[in-house]
Amino acid sequence: MGVSLKDVAQRAGVSVKTVSNVVNNYQHVTPGMRARVQQAIDELGYRPNLTARHLRKGRTGIIALAVPEFGNPYFAELAGAVIDAAARHDYTVLVDHTAGLRENELLVSQGFRAHVIDGLILSPIHLETEDLTGRTGAGPLVLLGEREYEAPYDHIAIDNVAAAREAVGHLVALGRRRIAFLGSRTGRERQPAHLRLRGWRQELEAHGLPADDSLVVVTDGYGRADGAHAMAALLDRGAAPDAVFAYNDLIAIGAMRTLAERGLSVPGDVAVVGFDDIEEARYGTVSLTTVSPDKEAIARLAVDSLVAQLKDGAPPSAPRRPRPGHHLAVRESAPAARPGGHR
Amino acid sequence: MGVSLKDVAQRAGVSVKTVSNVVNNYQHVTPGMRARVQQAIDELGYRPNLTARHLRKGRTGIIALAVPEFGNPYFAELAGAVIDAAARHDYTVLVDHTAGLRENELLVSQGFRAHVIDGLILSPIHLETEDLTGRTGAGPLVLLGEREYEAPYDHIAIDNVAAAREAVGHLVALGRRRIAFLGSRTGRERQPAHLRLRGWRQELEAHGLPADDSLVVVTDGYGRADGAHAMAALLDRGAAPDAVFAYNDLIAIGAMRTLAERGLSVPGDVAVVGFDDIEEARYGTVSLTTVSPDKEAIARLAVDSLVAQLKDGAPPSAPRRPRPGHHLAVRESAPAARPGGHR
Repeated sequence: MGVSLKDVAQRAGVSVKTVSNVVNNYQHVTPGMRARVQQAIDELGYRPNLTARHLRKGRTGIIALAVPEFGNPYFAELAGAVIDAAARHDYTVLVDHTAGLRENELLVSQGFRAHVIDGLILSPIHLETEDLTGRTGAGPLVLLGEREYEAPYDHIAIDNVAAAREAVGHLVALGRRRIAFLGSRTGRERQPAHLRLRGWRQELEAHGLPADDSLVVVTDGYGRADGAHAMAALLDRGAAPDAVFAYNDLIAIGAMRTLAERGLSVPGDVAVVGFDDIEEARYGTVSLTTVSPDKEAIARLAVDSLVAQLKDGAPPSAPRRPRPGHHLAVRESAPAARPGGHR
Repeated sequence: MGVSLKDVAQRAGVSVKTVSNVVNNYQHVTPGMRARVQQAIDELGYRPNLTARHLRKGRTGIIALAVPEFGNPYFAELAGAVIDAAARHDYTVLVDHTAGLRENELLVSQGFRAHVIDGLILSPIHLETEDLTGRTGAGPLVLLGEREYEAPYDHIAIDNVAAAREAVGHLVALGRRRIAFLGSRTGRERQPAHLRLRGWRQELEAHGLPADDSLVVVTDGYGRADGAHAMAALLDRGAAPDAVFAYNDLIAIGAMRTLAERGLSVPGDVAVVGFDDIEEARYGTVSLTTVSPDKEAIARLAVDSLVAQLKDGAPPSAPRRPRPGHHLAVRESAPAARPGGHR
């Protein structure tokens, strides 16, 4: 293990970061650059051992990312972005799934496997503020996602209310007046869909439209099947929406499947907007208009926070609430409004 | 840490496995059973520490699963199944992505992070037999997927040739005669698409149909964009297929998007069959007919192999090649043939 990343970088005449990128294949590297670095690796007999420098500091070089759903492409895409961001700091990522259950969120947040991880990025669904304030000595933590906490931890989330308002405002500009919200939850005020539902309500009221609770559908989960059932329930009770704003893309995709089965056209009969901008949204027979959070920024801010905490050996003196960006990706399911008025 | 899983099981009057399932939320547990176990957990003050018994044996209780693409839902779904299967043996899973690159596959197969993992399940794309035969002392290994190796490791894969033949046979039964294959690769004989392409060829020839190489499209990768580009290339060169068999569902979904953009109907103009049966396949505006591998069986066989190797302290005396099952999930993109003949 005498040969370091730095030795390879010097031999190849490139930066350590470039060597790291080649070794990890986490970023696009030109074929020429790759060949140059590979040659230096071969000449020096370098064997990557990313964890060596962490071990010297009593660390493992592994950070955990705990997400509620492994099968939700949003979290898979976010995990990919976190893996990339972590690799730039020579960290590898252990991905954990909590199934969105409070017991599991509690378990990971309180230091489950603390002996193998240096820090945790957690996207909670049911964890409460008091669960977090009672947490002691379990290592650096960063929170992700829509839930709000009064706890001394950095929390990375886009402005969910503003994003939801843009989605609903877009549907209003298309002339839609009966805009349903699919994917609400019963129960506590701060559960995930809360901010997006608030944005739906605020935007409708800003346009002088009623926020009709009969157009809000509670779902059990956040998957395609939940969206399909929610849409069917809405149509079965005669609600006749002319647009749907879904809590996430999977619910929107499930809703579109039900609309197709019922012979309703998208966007002709019902315009649909999702949230997450998963790749699948771009490839449906009718592509999906959706709120696109800046996943790379979310991942980078989260990893930077953990790395800073590890470097300082302490949590942030004041918890930070950075706001990564977002934009509305306008596609076929709710196209751009025609100039000059409503359709 | 005086309270064990066993103590909780005894208090609740259930099996240790049931307690484990509740603690990990990896399987559906009835609400009544959950409440009963939760009560025992609360009464005893049990804190899960899944790794304790592994640590006593000098192990970490973590197995790694290395997949080529994190963003491919097939691997996300497979990872979920592996996590479930591993949990039944009190193992947790670290998911690694190799980006399908030989250097990374080599890295993980040769014991990258061997200090934190007890064993590895690897789904390789480019690794060669000689890379594996040269591997020494890096812990238990199980291989997954379509590539074939002559190496002393257990290898879990469905019968890809038979599965591809069923897919193509289904299209022939629908009266299709110009059946394209999307997702071939150039280069080495044993690269991933090889067996599925062989099945395509064998089945066509079995029906006395020509296996027309102008209907085979090479792709750079295995994503939706690759499928969209491959379909466009095929149409642009005037190939006029009446059916598509795609290497995987993502390529099939990308192809269907291109067909929609070109005004061609599925299955009317072009019938489409994929491979993997990812959840997305069931929720398109036109649902996708696809080969459905038994992911639970794949995961269970892989984990069982690793656990047996860890128990025996040695690799299998003779490498095993179990064949998990598969079936063709028939949906709208290539529906069941009507009785009495072709359409």
